[in-house]
Amino acid sequence: MKIGIYGYGNLGKGVECAIKQNSDVELVAVFTRRDPATVKILTPEAEVVKTDRVLEYKDKIDVMIICGGSATDLPEMTPELAKNFNVIDSFDTHAKIPEHFANVNKTATENGNIALISAGWDPGMFSVNRLMASAILPAGKDYTFWGRGVSQGHSDAIRRIDGVLDARQYTCPVEEAMNKVRAGENPELTTREKHTRECFVVAEEGADLERIKNEIVTMPNYFADYDTTVTFISQEELNLNHKGIPHGGSVIRTGVTGKDGENKQVIEYKLTLDSNPEFTASVILCYARAIYKMKSRGITGCKTVFDVAPADLSAIPYEEMLAHML
Amino acid sequence: MKIGIYGYGNLGKGVECAIKQNSDVELVAVFTRRDPATVKILTPEAEVVKTDRVLEYKDKIDVMIICGGSATDLPEMTPELAKNFNVIDSFDTHAKIPEHFANVNKTATENGNIALISAGWDPGMFSVNRLMASAILPAGKDYTFWGRGVSQGHSDAIRRIDGVLDARQYTCPVEEAMNKVRAGENPELTTREKHTRECFVVAEEGADLERIKNEIVTMPNYFADYDTTVTFISQEELNLNHKGIPHGGSVIRTGVTGKDGENKQVIEYKLTLDSNPEFTASVILCYARAIYKMKSRGITGCKTVFDVAPADLSAIPYEEMLAHML
Repeated sequence: MKIGIYGYGNLGKGVECAIKQNSDVELVAVFTRRDPATVKILTPEAEVVKTDRVLEYKDKIDVMIICGGSATDLPEMTPELAKNFNVIDSFDTHAKIPEHFANVNKTATENGNIALISAGWDPGMFSVNRLMASAILPAGKDYTFWGRGVSQGHSDAIRRIDGVLDARQYTCPVEEAMNKVRAGENPELTTREKHTRECFVVAEEGADLERIKNEIVTMPNYFADYDTTVTFISQEELNLNHKGIPHGGSVIRTGVTGKDGENKQVIEYKLTLDSNPEFTASVILCYARAIYKMKSRGITGCKTVFDVAPADLSAIPYEEMLAHML
Repeated sequence: MKIGIYGYGNLGKGVECAIKQNSDVELVAVFTRRDPATVKILTPEAEVVKTDRVLEYKDKIDVMIICGGSATDLPEMTPELAKNFNVIDSFDTHAKIPEHFANVNKTATENGNIALISAGWDPGMFSVNRLMASAILPAGKDYTFWGRGVSQGHSDAIRRIDGVLDARQYTCPVEEAMNKVRAGENPELTTREKHTRECFVVAEEGADLERIKNEIVTMPNYFADYDTTVTFISQEELNLNHKGIPHGGSVIRTGVTGKDGENKQVIEYKLTLDSNPEFTASVILCYARAIYKMKSRGITGCKTVFDVAPADLSAIPYEEMLAHML
């Protein structure tokens, strides 16, 4: 399977690393908006190509993995590239998924290509687990906890405050709330009861730390609804202890079964990730394999993780799965 | 979707309860080898029918859920019933799955029916999670822990010992081993290091308890390779505290990603079940729904959980999934 990577940030680099772990997959080219001469990649056999030359690769790439941002890149890129390629993206603006799906489905279907949107872990593996668990336990309730992990969006929001040089924000699940859920207590939880927010902030010398702290903890949407802690640290300490991009979380479904709902059942899917973008990339690569297989069976149009059977994600032959993995 | 339940033990009863939780599913009949007059079911609208009359229901049932034992029932029943019905079973003799698959595939395909074997949680949901996690993290290692839960097979083995009136055996995961795995230490674990076995035994009055205990802990295959504890209790205490059928466990995949495998990633799928047969039944019912949908798209032959896309498990319309569950 021949892969193109469209966009070479953290996610694109993660895809390149994931390709190296899978012998059935080959990287053909990385497409970048930057000057290709300035972009160093890890794969000597692959090319670095300016995005405006992408159509030259139309018949050389089986699946194009689009590694752009959800805010402005993907709504344009995915429907456009689906005219000429089988494509996959990690579109994660939950509220706009139906619109994005319709746009991508139109161009992919019209041009006989297959596309898959919103691959990754949330949306992605968490979505699959929410759907499967809710189907298995219809008399039940879903909980999603995130973290402990870095939220890029919240870190950026802090960095925009006057007097802040750098910042890192961790989203943390409230252990007590998770334990109540796992015990099958079916609690009603407010936003504040589910997650806390830890902020590590590098301030300019002489900045008013009280004002910065106050601006953070009262910021609407981002922090006001949470118990937020702010710790001022040096740039050196931030670089030393907070440069990783860990994340994770749990999807928990609790439900009841039996004649009178007398038996509690709990399903939990939990991720503990040292690198959020690399894990996302590893998931995307599996789904790229899946749509490549599905396309070979004549399937076109826009798909999601909900449409993909587990067997299509794996490079293992079906007979071997039956004998050793079922 | 019209369902038949073939066999009315703990699993068949669990399926009946699960059907009540799903408004798109209707129970038509329970088929039993016993005298139907002696079998009381929970669904007034459904019939109880002797198994030798099953062919009269050929056009009245969309999916037949076969609730027999894996040792002798299912290898006969599933291929035979697949001649006239879409069928699903929970065949769990891992080593014989390829043979069972081939037998069922032959009769289902020849007669234009669809079949799904080995649904449940292991094989079943655990298999799906082993496969998906190994595809996502190819540079990694799988661990499956079971329990704490009742093993019917081990309880039966104890009951066959001379002087034993009743027994209940719990399989328990070793917490320390699980924590090493979750920490990404990739330990090599022996059988003894992964699970312990707790036995609660009711002995005949005057029986030689030391001999019974010794026969249990040295029993090959069942107990000899484990740290096994034996506790003698009264029948009253067993009835009071050990009549439930809880089970569960975790499938854990640990792997590495990144340029030099520098980042650890952990995926865990965990079940905590008050009732093993009712949960198994709830999973089977979802897969019954899935094969019914797949059949309506013209798919026939034998399938497994590896062939089923998540969307087919759910009664929720696809548009709603996109808008609210992705």
